[in-house]
Amino acid sequence: MRQAGRSLPEYRRLKEDHSILDLCRKPDLATEVTLQPVRRLGVDAAILFSDIVVPLMGLGIEVDIVPGVGPVFADPLRGKGDVDRIRQLDAEADVPFVLETIRQLVTELEVPLIGFSGAPFTLACYLIEGGPSKDHARTKALMYSDPSTWSDLMMRLAEMILAYTRAQVAAGARAIQLFDSWIGVVGRDDFEAHVKPAVAHILDGLQDLDVPRIYFGLAAGELLSSFGSLGADVIGIDWRIPLDEARERIGSDVAVQGNLDPATCLASTAVLDARAQEVLRRGGGTGHVFNLGHGVLPQTDPAVLSHLVELVHDWNGDG
Amino acid sequence: MRQAGRSLPEYRRLKEDHSILDLCRKPDLATEVTLQPVRRLGVDAAILFSDIVVPLMGLGIEVDIVPGVGPVFADPLRGKGDVDRIRQLDAEADVPFVLETIRQLVTELEVPLIGFSGAPFTLACYLIEGGPSKDHARTKALMYSDPSTWSDLMMRLAEMILAYTRAQVAAGARAIQLFDSWIGVVGRDDFEAHVKPAVAHILDGLQDLDVPRIYFGLAAGELLSSFGSLGADVIGIDWRIPLDEARERIGSDVAVQGNLDPATCLASTAVLDARAQEVLRRGGGTGHVFNLGHGVLPQTDPAVLSHLVELVHDWNGDG
Repeated sequence: MRQAGRSLPEYRRLKEDHSILDLCRKPDLATEVTLQPVRRLGVDAAILFSDIVVPLMGLGIEVDIVPGVGPVFADPLRGKGDVDRIRQLDAEADVPFVLETIRQLVTELEVPLIGFSGAPFTLACYLIEGGPSKDHARTKALMYSDPSTWSDLMMRLAEMILAYTRAQVAAGARAIQLFDSWIGVVGRDDFEAHVKPAVAHILDGLQDLDVPRIYFGLAAGELLSSFGSLGADVIGIDWRIPLDEARERIGSDVAVQGNLDPATCLASTAVLDARAQEVLRRGGGTGHVFNLGHGVLPQTDPAVLSHLVELVHDWNGDG
Repeated sequence: MRQAGRSLPEYRRLKEDHSILDLCRKPDLATEVTLQPVRRLGVDAAILFSDIVVPLMGLGIEVDIVPGVGPVFADPLRGKGDVDRIRQLDAEADVPFVLETIRQLVTELEVPLIGFSGAPFTLACYLIEGGPSKDHARTKALMYSDPSTWSDLMMRLAEMILAYTRAQVAAGARAIQLFDSWIGVVGRDDFEAHVKPAVAHILDGLQDLDVPRIYFGLAAGELLSSFGSLGADVIGIDWRIPLDEARERIGSDVAVQGNLDPATCLASTAVLDARAQEVLRRGGGTGHVFNLGHGVLPQTDPAVLSHLVELVHDWNGDG
């Protein structure tokens, strides 16, 4: 359960003294924060605590995470002349703290660790908009107007992400998830033409490592028919579409991950149980990794998450 | 083109001296702001300048529009005990300035005026979240946990919106558009069970007035198959899905409105022209109202909008 930490008092205490980027940069703290939800909730895998801007920061790009706002870049990327800021990442030199965190984690964890990175489109949105955006209009305007600069940017980001995630696997991560949080603002033809090649390049470049490759796009129902041929082993699905329908739309034999609405964790236990069972039923038992359709909401009661983990573990297909 | 005013220097000058709610409340100013894009762009219809919180403000609910943030409610609605704040609206007494604006406008306009209101789900989101929200989790938690309170709230909002939009038509509006900006966070089963009855109640209640009823849901591709039976005459489509596919999914003979991505207005003229022609072609010529798939972006050059209006007017089906 991604971002489960946000709901835990032990994480909030750490947040009082440390910024998010501080927590990411200090292996002891990042290890502790990654372990907190695993200890408390009994989940079947851990997901690395980090932030999607970390590899960009590793390239020397100036970025701050402003509380209540999100990542803010001092000098947004605005066109052709700025693209060469995205150079190849040397993970051991540029983000040693991430790899050190992973190496610490794998000695302590009894469950597999999932590494992660933002996907190229979503990182491009942050770089180009420079801060939060509802419409990602500058990003799309560049994509529409200057396809060659756009493609150069996407492939540079793809190479960076590939180096970043390969290094995570080398350090001990046992699966890689790519998060494409903003991909839902792109139409299908544009995804095919302007985004898919970069995502496929990363997934293809991870193939020889033999770890599950998970791709998650938020609000991406319109794009599912393009996701089956991305080269992912698992497609993450948000809560907007039932898993059996998602499978049909994807149209290949990749597994699905999801897709309980995080807001159900704020509802009554009866509602939560019924909806979780519905997800399990429509997931079909095999080729389905149960999780939430998006990150845990900060106001979630951790006891509810523990209950949910038990429910999933106890499910025997007739709930 | 909704929110076209935001891109105009004459609107920005007015905004220097007046808040948005000020502009809404003063008929001379609201009239002027509604007329500005019509004068400059040569569009075929005007859309009333107002804000979706106006009828709620008319009920005496305390709300402010904070620049850069959006509507903020001093005392969010949190459960059963708060629902009776949504009483029936007496438009002539509660929001006389809206009706006065419409009456002024219809004496000055040579094109039809489209009245509008927020739809029940989106207004509920604002009331319950109290401010901007990415996940609308409190709203969904209420919907999931307490369906009877939720249904009471939705039907109260529907009655309020019906009174509000009927009064707009009586004052001279020649079409009504309902905006459901946040409906894209709801799954299809929940839309059918918890939202559709209220929207259908409004659309049905407008039927005898014999004006086109337009319903627009942002990021609502997953819900289109439910929209065909809402009772709308026109379904607004954002840019995420081509109009011919949208029509198929809607599956009835309602007209469609849309759906050029507003970000294309920031791209080169060649890209804009090609994409606008693609929208016209996939719209199919009849049963299609051309507009943008969402509001005009503030950074849009007004000359580009004028060019776009000309392009649409000159289109002869072979572009």
